[in-house]
Amino acid sequence: MKRPTIADIARQAGVSKVAVSYALNDQPGVSAQTRARIKAIAAEVGWRPSSAARALNGAQARAVGLAVCRPARTLSVEPFFMELIGGIESELAPRSIALMLQTVSSHDDEIELYRRWWGEGRVDGALLVDLHDDDVRVAALAAMDLPVVALGPPQAAGAVPAVWSDDGASVHETVAYLAALGHRAIARVAGLPQLAHTTVRDAAFEESCRDAGLPAPTVVHTDYSGEEGARATRRLLIAPERPTAIVYDNDIMAVAGLSVAQELSLEVPRDLSLVAWDDSPFTQAVRPQLTALTRDIGEYGALAARTLLAAVGKEEVRHSQVPAARLLPRASTSPPRTA
Amino acid sequence: MKRPTIADIARQAGVSKVAVSYALNDQPGVSAQTRARIKAIAAEVGWRPSSAARALNGAQARAVGLAVCRPARTLSVEPFFMELIGGIESELAPRSIALMLQTVSSHDDEIELYRRWWGEGRVDGALLVDLHDDDVRVAALAAMDLPVVALGPPQAAGAVPAVWSDDGASVHETVAYLAALGHRAIARVAGLPQLAHTTVRDAAFEESCRDAGLPAPTVVHTDYSGEEGARATRRLLIAPERPTAIVYDNDIMAVAGLSVAQELSLEVPRDLSLVAWDDSPFTQAVRPQLTALTRDIGEYGALAARTLLAAVGKEEVRHSQVPAARLLPRASTSPPRTA
Repeated sequence: MKRPTIADIARQAGVSKVAVSYALNDQPGVSAQTRARIKAIAAEVGWRPSSAARALNGAQARAVGLAVCRPARTLSVEPFFMELIGGIESELAPRSIALMLQTVSSHDDEIELYRRWWGEGRVDGALLVDLHDDDVRVAALAAMDLPVVALGPPQAAGAVPAVWSDDGASVHETVAYLAALGHRAIARVAGLPQLAHTTVRDAAFEESCRDAGLPAPTVVHTDYSGEEGARATRRLLIAPERPTAIVYDNDIMAVAGLSVAQELSLEVPRDLSLVAWDDSPFTQAVRPQLTALTRDIGEYGALAARTLLAAVGKEEVRHSQVPAARLLPRASTSPPRTA
Repeated sequence: MKRPTIADIARQAGVSKVAVSYALNDQPGVSAQTRARIKAIAAEVGWRPSSAARALNGAQARAVGLAVCRPARTLSVEPFFMELIGGIESELAPRSIALMLQTVSSHDDEIELYRRWWGEGRVDGALLVDLHDDDVRVAALAAMDLPVVALGPPQAAGAVPAVWSDDGASVHETVAYLAALGHRAIARVAGLPQLAHTTVRDAAFEESCRDAGLPAPTVVHTDYSGEEGARATRRLLIAPERPTAIVYDNDIMAVAGLSVAQELSLEVPRDLSLVAWDDSPFTQAVRPQLTALTRDIGEYGALAARTLLAAVGKEEVRHSQVPAARLLPRASTSPPRTA
């Protein structure tokens, strides 16, 4: 016999699953009469809360916080962020847990915001994004006793459990692939240098080139915008020793880089190979379609949300890993034209 | 003499603006000592709360709700949504007001969610998005006495104040432009038919074609995804009487439509002109770049947030309008090739 679910009760009672959830969790949102009827049906079918549901008893605020230390209007620049929120929501929404979202202008403001939200019982936990090297937020949040999960490399997360992917492995795969195609001069157009994952990628890039017997790579740091991606590309391509392959830290900069190559009458991929990290509808919309490092960003957000809910439910939580981004070769990479 | 601001006080006190805001609004988040020092400085410089700040005295929860009735993972499909949230945040964040975000699977669930949030004092107001024709949420939310602002056409918003743009005017401009170029067979690849703004655009499209002396347009409704946009385009282009121009209800479908045209060896724009609504980095990343209907989506979200905050502050609030999307011709539109 199948274990009865909330959906079964909802169907029998002729109400929504959310109404059943409110009724069984003694939350407001349904009338006393409906509540009694739903509880009677639940008892009749032998419904018992699942362990996941019991873990949620710790979630009194029924909300988790996400402060984003970026200018509000730039939230939309990269598809990454919305995909992440979509993944987080895919875990929170079925449990009727909301996401408290606020952009802040400094890490100090972010710490103050979490202190207030936590002190006022407005969140049950928090997600920490855009980890920096020596991130002041890590110790401050840990000291508040607020359940926190960080999205980023464990070495930057201190005592906070991190959800992360092995960017070093992805870099190694990319550089080995480009070296195998015959590239020797590889450049990297990177994101913000203070971000912990930029540091990880920078170091892996240098090491991978050394391992492959290539000269040290040229690395240019940017703010992730298409403008800076275009400028960095132009600078690299008009230098006396121009690279034959460029790896970008996001999709927008790679697309902008492709336009710059076309503007300079360089043929992609024969004159210049391009790799984007991450993949997105952008990289497939352009011609040639871009070789990309692809990963399931939604699942990254979903795992972070599940890990945070476990922490809220007082489970012991460790670092956990999503699969590393893997290389998906498309039409923007090939052996370089022989000089 | 300049009116002293929170920033002036923050500078003098050597603390953040957020800390000053907490101190002056008697909210937790700063120590008693810091609070006293900040209040002393405020008194010394003669600081007075602005009317906007006083309006916020009604904002006890310091959060506004935004329920989105879409599958969680599809939040990232269109840049539109994140740009809207970015604009909303640009007004909320400086006032330390959070956005409570949750995806829901039905309008009934959405109504229940708002009832709970409002009943528990977790939000001060709510934003209503993706308005439907005969939207059940409108009357339900109005009955709750919850301050609400709708994003969409006033005719669908009932007694709820709407923030809207005149889509009919944008349609007229587009059809008149295509007719002036010599197009007679114009098709429209539209979004979800139950959305109120789809109805508005459908009606305006039909009327504009009639006004321009053109045959009635072919309209295909989709779910806004690239897949359905591609399929709709393919269906239109393999029909015996294929259109010479297609207008799309979003950027993703227009980009997908361009790929389908290339797959069928049709030259854009000579064999087929394409128009995207809205503009986005996508439409500029492809070749040829797409003619687009462009508007400031961030400002749309910002105006909605400002209007909602005014409603929360018990001001009388009316429908308010952002400028209509305007046509930005690029390389994807031209006169049709003469047969």
